[in-house]
Amino acid sequence: MGNFLMDQTKLCGTQSLHFQRPAYILSAASVAGKKEAEGPLGKKFDMVDEQDNLFGAKTWEEAESNMQKEACILAIGKAGLKPEKIRYLFGGDLLRQGIATSMGVEALQIPMFGLYGACSTSGEALALAAMSVSAGYGDSMLAVTSSHFGSAEKEFRFPLGYASQRPLSAHWTVTGSGAFVVGTDPGNVKISGITVGKIVDYGLKDSQNMGACMAPAAADTIVRNLKDFGRTAEDYDRIITGDLGSIGQSILFDLAAEKGYDLRQKHLDCGMLIFDPETQDTHAGGSGCGCAAVTLASYLLPKIESGEWKRILFVPTGALMSTVSFNEGASVPGIAHGIVIEHCRKEAAGWTI
Amino acid sequence: MGNFLMDQTKLCGTQSLHFQRPAYILSAASVAGKKEAEGPLGKKFDMVDEQDNLFGAKTWEEAESNMQKEACILAIGKAGLKPEKIRYLFGGDLLRQGIATSMGVEALQIPMFGLYGACSTSGEALALAAMSVSAGYGDSMLAVTSSHFGSAEKEFRFPLGYASQRPLSAHWTVTGSGAFVVGTDPGNVKISGITVGKIVDYGLKDSQNMGACMAPAAADTIVRNLKDFGRTAEDYDRIITGDLGSIGQSILFDLAAEKGYDLRQKHLDCGMLIFDPETQDTHAGGSGCGCAAVTLASYLLPKIESGEWKRILFVPTGALMSTVSFNEGASVPGIAHGIVIEHCRKEAAGWTI
Repeated sequence: MGNFLMDQTKLCGTQSLHFQRPAYILSAASVAGKKEAEGPLGKKFDMVDEQDNLFGAKTWEEAESNMQKEACILAIGKAGLKPEKIRYLFGGDLLRQGIATSMGVEALQIPMFGLYGACSTSGEALALAAMSVSAGYGDSMLAVTSSHFGSAEKEFRFPLGYASQRPLSAHWTVTGSGAFVVGTDPGNVKISGITVGKIVDYGLKDSQNMGACMAPAAADTIVRNLKDFGRTAEDYDRIITGDLGSIGQSILFDLAAEKGYDLRQKHLDCGMLIFDPETQDTHAGGSGCGCAAVTLASYLLPKIESGEWKRILFVPTGALMSTVSFNEGASVPGIAHGIVIEHCRKEAAGWTI
Repeated sequence: MGNFLMDQTKLCGTQSLHFQRPAYILSAASVAGKKEAEGPLGKKFDMVDEQDNLFGAKTWEEAESNMQKEACILAIGKAGLKPEKIRYLFGGDLLRQGIATSMGVEALQIPMFGLYGACSTSGEALALAAMSVSAGYGDSMLAVTSSHFGSAEKEFRFPLGYASQRPLSAHWTVTGSGAFVVGTDPGNVKISGITVGKIVDYGLKDSQNMGACMAPAAADTIVRNLKDFGRTAEDYDRIITGDLGSIGQSILFDLAAEKGYDLRQKHLDCGMLIFDPETQDTHAGGSGCGCAAVTLASYLLPKIESGEWKRILFVPTGALMSTVSFNEGASVPGIAHGIVIEHCRKEAAGWTI
């Protein structure tokens, strides 16, 4: 059998892994807020708060924790499991010291790894969950992320009560949480590979133009994925970034074109899918750890599950900053992680060497 | 060969992994501040700032980033590698949105996973690095964490200029960064297993008594490790927590005793090793992501390398909170990850089934 590690996982290029033993996405759940429910994907979410986005809590932070807990419980239930059957949890959010996750998943009592990758965290969590499943570290892992408009505005900008004006380049942080059970049990959707992102810094300092800050990282990870796997953009049905928004998208197209890749026919962006720019006044688009997660759970995965799309590259994008780094004059670098998600016929699935 | 995954990794109990293909700690580096240099471990650090703890920067945050960068460069150099030979980096710190790490490791251009586990992050990073090496996801990984007294006081309490009084139960955040190269190349020190921690909440709300907040998580992870691996405390030369301090230690002993384990002869705490309580006025002890990391790099690993200790359980401990969660009345749960580190004779090392 030779070197079994080579049989199990192929190191691709400099940043990617190709899982010979795939990790299946067994279930996905999305919980979202009122504005998201009024958007183009509104009917697809598993649970929404039509009232006040507080999800029964008294603070935005606790509301975000409640969303995460609900998303986890829904995903675990959809997979026909119980929390004690989940070996490890990989989760994160945008708040300082990741309290939305700590307080949200505590009740589940699953051994956990706390993550921070800004809005790329859903990619980071799926990558680590898939790595752990493919390595045989357990039958089922849980990946969860969240963001909340109220807690994020308070964390990064101003409390909502200030009614601050927002520039047209600003994003609207999605109130939502997405959770995914990744496991060995064969299903119709598998994570076949990942491309782990580097920090990419073009020196931009405008935290109200996150699309521009993140687009270089998205371009870097997408091009690296294509090179590492020896693919072209044509090998994917869609290449879907997390939350570049309309401004970031145009920069991504330019940067990719400079490197010889035309992404225009293949690209979608979760931040542009989740709100209607004509009627919802969200400027550049949606953003936040929850944006890519709920879009994947509610809109993208069903298309892969059904076979409408055979293979996508899902690339959540993050802008690395805090109010402190921003106020001290630091630039806002970006990071993006690429997750290759494929349709597979259930009867043909399973691990084959 | 049967189920090769069973050959490669044994799932132990409910939370632990035993690596049949071990991950070796190839090198370690420690960078620390002036007060730490004056403490009992002061002569053992690789690099110290004897001046002003700014490490050539203008802000505490940038100083912390510089420490991380220096620790990484030192560790990579000691392993005889270059940054491009490190497949993935696992890193984190205590600051909001992990900016010390993002800004610190950016120059290395290593694909990276950002982590947050409060002061348990060094254990989280080592666990994920070891999991990745053992799974064959690359020959070398880097684990790095940091904390800085100046940036942490500003982040969690008050700016230093306020000269706030500290209660006797308070910890002193260590100014330091530790970095570790974990790889396949056989050496004298291996990570043979891990126990991933759960969030444990006893409902304590005193953020100035972190030892009490973290002790239940430490007890939970240590007892779980012993049960999962079928060991007693006697099977370890030392069981070493991250930063419980003197108050947390006494609570740990009580909680472990309630579960039938006597840890008194085996326990050390990095927070109690790094400062001299008689002369350094650090109250309950040292703390921070950097505390356990620099103590491991400078003091613990050389004892394992030499064979003075054959096997230790290293258990960094974290208190999960932010100023927002604290001000909103949330409790301060804890988390602790256990890393089993063993001495192995170099000539006898290597992977054997």
